[in-house]
Amino acid sequence: MTMIEIKIELTTNKKDKPTINKLGFGQFYTDHMFILDYIEGKGWHDPRIIPYQSISLDPAAKVFHYSQTVFEGLKAYLTVDKRVRLFRPESNFKRLNISNERLCIPSINEEHALEALKQLITVDGEWIPNEPGTSLYIRPFIIATDPYLGVSSSKSFQFIIIMSPVGSYYKEGIKPVKILVEQHYVRAVVGGTGGAKTGGNYASSLKGQEIASKEGYSQTLWLDGKEKRYVEEVGSMNIFFKINGTVVTPALNGSILPGITRDSMIQLLKSKNIPVEERRISIDEVIEAYHNRTLEEAFGTGTAAVISPIGELKWKNEKVIVNNGEIGEVTQMLYDTLIGIQNGSLEDPFGWTIML
Amino acid sequence: MTMIEIKIELTTNKKDKPTINKLGFGQFYTDHMFILDYIEGKGWHDPRIIPYQSISLDPAAKVFHYSQTVFEGLKAYLTVDKRVRLFRPESNFKRLNISNERLCIPSINEEHALEALKQLITVDGEWIPNEPGTSLYIRPFIIATDPYLGVSSSKSFQFIIIMSPVGSYYKEGIKPVKILVEQHYVRAVVGGTGGAKTGGNYASSLKGQEIASKEGYSQTLWLDGKEKRYVEEVGSMNIFFKINGTVVTPALNGSILPGITRDSMIQLLKSKNIPVEERRISIDEVIEAYHNRTLEEAFGTGTAAVISPIGELKWKNEKVIVNNGEIGEVTQMLYDTLIGIQNGSLEDPFGWTIML
Repeated sequence: MTMIEIKIELTTNKKDKPTINKLGFGQFYTDHMFILDYIEGKGWHDPRIIPYQSISLDPAAKVFHYSQTVFEGLKAYLTVDKRVRLFRPESNFKRLNISNERLCIPSINEEHALEALKQLITVDGEWIPNEPGTSLYIRPFIIATDPYLGVSSSKSFQFIIIMSPVGSYYKEGIKPVKILVEQHYVRAVVGGTGGAKTGGNYASSLKGQEIASKEGYSQTLWLDGKEKRYVEEVGSMNIFFKINGTVVTPALNGSILPGITRDSMIQLLKSKNIPVEERRISIDEVIEAYHNRTLEEAFGTGTAAVISPIGELKWKNEKVIVNNGEIGEVTQMLYDTLIGIQNGSLEDPFGWTIML
Repeated sequence: MTMIEIKIELTTNKKDKPTINKLGFGQFYTDHMFILDYIEGKGWHDPRIIPYQSISLDPAAKVFHYSQTVFEGLKAYLTVDKRVRLFRPESNFKRLNISNERLCIPSINEEHALEALKQLITVDGEWIPNEPGTSLYIRPFIIATDPYLGVSSSKSFQFIIIMSPVGSYYKEGIKPVKILVEQHYVRAVVGGTGGAKTGGNYASSLKGQEIASKEGYSQTLWLDGKEKRYVEEVGSMNIFFKINGTVVTPALNGSILPGITRDSMIQLLKSKNIPVEERRISIDEVIEAYHNRTLEEAFGTGTAAVISPIGELKWKNEKVIVNNGEIGEVTQMLYDTLIGIQNGSLEDPFGWTIML
């Protein structure tokens, strides 16, 4: 571990903590934040933990106009013995640098970023909620700050970490959700930014969400941008189908986010000797499996929601009911196992968790 | 014209104005800016002109994470008789609302926006530069300000107008540029956000620009995201080819920005009885025209650059030299005519310009 010296300025005005049942997702923030600056020629510099506060930027800052930005999402958990546990944080900082590469943002030192995160969590440790299903959601992000309107990469950036105590992502809890398969709009395409965690993908997806909501569905299932035929993601999650005993998830093709929860699920399935395939899967194949009664389960995975069972898919005029709209056996097992590893109630044979 | 009451707070600390030869593009900003707030339920409210200043936002503001943002670009000119002239501003505010629709941002009142712009220009009129080729670049933009990390449309926004005195976009002036045709990366795809003026498209394009620069080219020519075969845009401009006497530009397909300069060029060409076609054009057709010696001219169009002649296109290992690397006759005519209409030295038979 390389050491970095982080300046720490503690708040003199701590906020009241929200009650657990009001947490929701990403609504409240802890007392402090981490900031690191970048200027071309000087590199990343001046790491500091400061009281949570507004960011002040020139209105011409490139992030406002050209969306040169990347982010990550991960969680810290309070274990049953009151220790703080992080889930695969190295993977997040590694992926942040992959996103940086696509968005022409200078790479960060992954070890330093993790060290900074640990210090921030230590400072704000009392913000980690303690109830089952709760956690401290961590949002590292980088924004382009150059106040110049020419379309070119910024020469200055800020890397910021904020943290938010969260309940479950879905208000309904682990109940299966209804998903609308989008026919017209596209989230991302091979060669674009879909494989990077950058704001533009999410901005593009809002329209699908709006359409789904109007029809009474909670998320959008995105098909590929080239043929509008192959399944890519659901909402802001990766997607899995269990068909005739085998779990299938779309292979990473450059337009699908390489989810860390996705990767964890694949490893969990393999460890349980449940067949799992990463390959192209068309919406036609899903519909056909439904007609053949071999579509057994479907679920989305992501850091925020962990796992989200899919109870219904609507494709054109057809409603595909999955497992009678109930959570499937494998979905439940994956959820219980991953949550158990994350909160420390189960062993972690994969070495995914680190203790502070 | 509907009237709106705009609060005006004048600066007590005017900035020094840059000398004309240092202007560049989007580097200096005038003394004031316009701001309008939006909150769900209340709508757009509190229009105000205030001294140019930093924007202060919660670090969780959605624009930083999910890039829910749109923008416009237009110019004001000082005419030979010292009056202020705007070029097709209604088209920009109309397009802003089209972008808003795609990005789930509430629409603005286009008349009020134009009225606000006129008042802002009046306040900062002394910032409009006076030399040939210079103008006042105007950047209206909207950012999502909700400090919540759930992926959903913001319920609060800010509409802001900033202004920047500019010289020519290209330092080289109107000299032909060298363009690299991108084979791997994609700017946008049908069903995505390519037809809207939103940051994500520009963020996605930075990588192509980086690659082009490394190879000694100044811009990227983007092909379609589905087949990587059809020409879409060049850098952040629309593109035109003159082949065997006919000017061809890619038809608007949803992934190409509906450029206002593009539309003006088409109208100019029609008025001069020069054949012009909006249709799909493949890179193969361009290469074939080059081999047949029928590729006569090529140029990009946009508000910032107005027109940018293309002297060379590189596609795979082939270098396509257009018109001996010199500016073509039609390109020059279009440039001279449009600039003339914009700065008032030529008649405006199209009704494009409005005087303040």
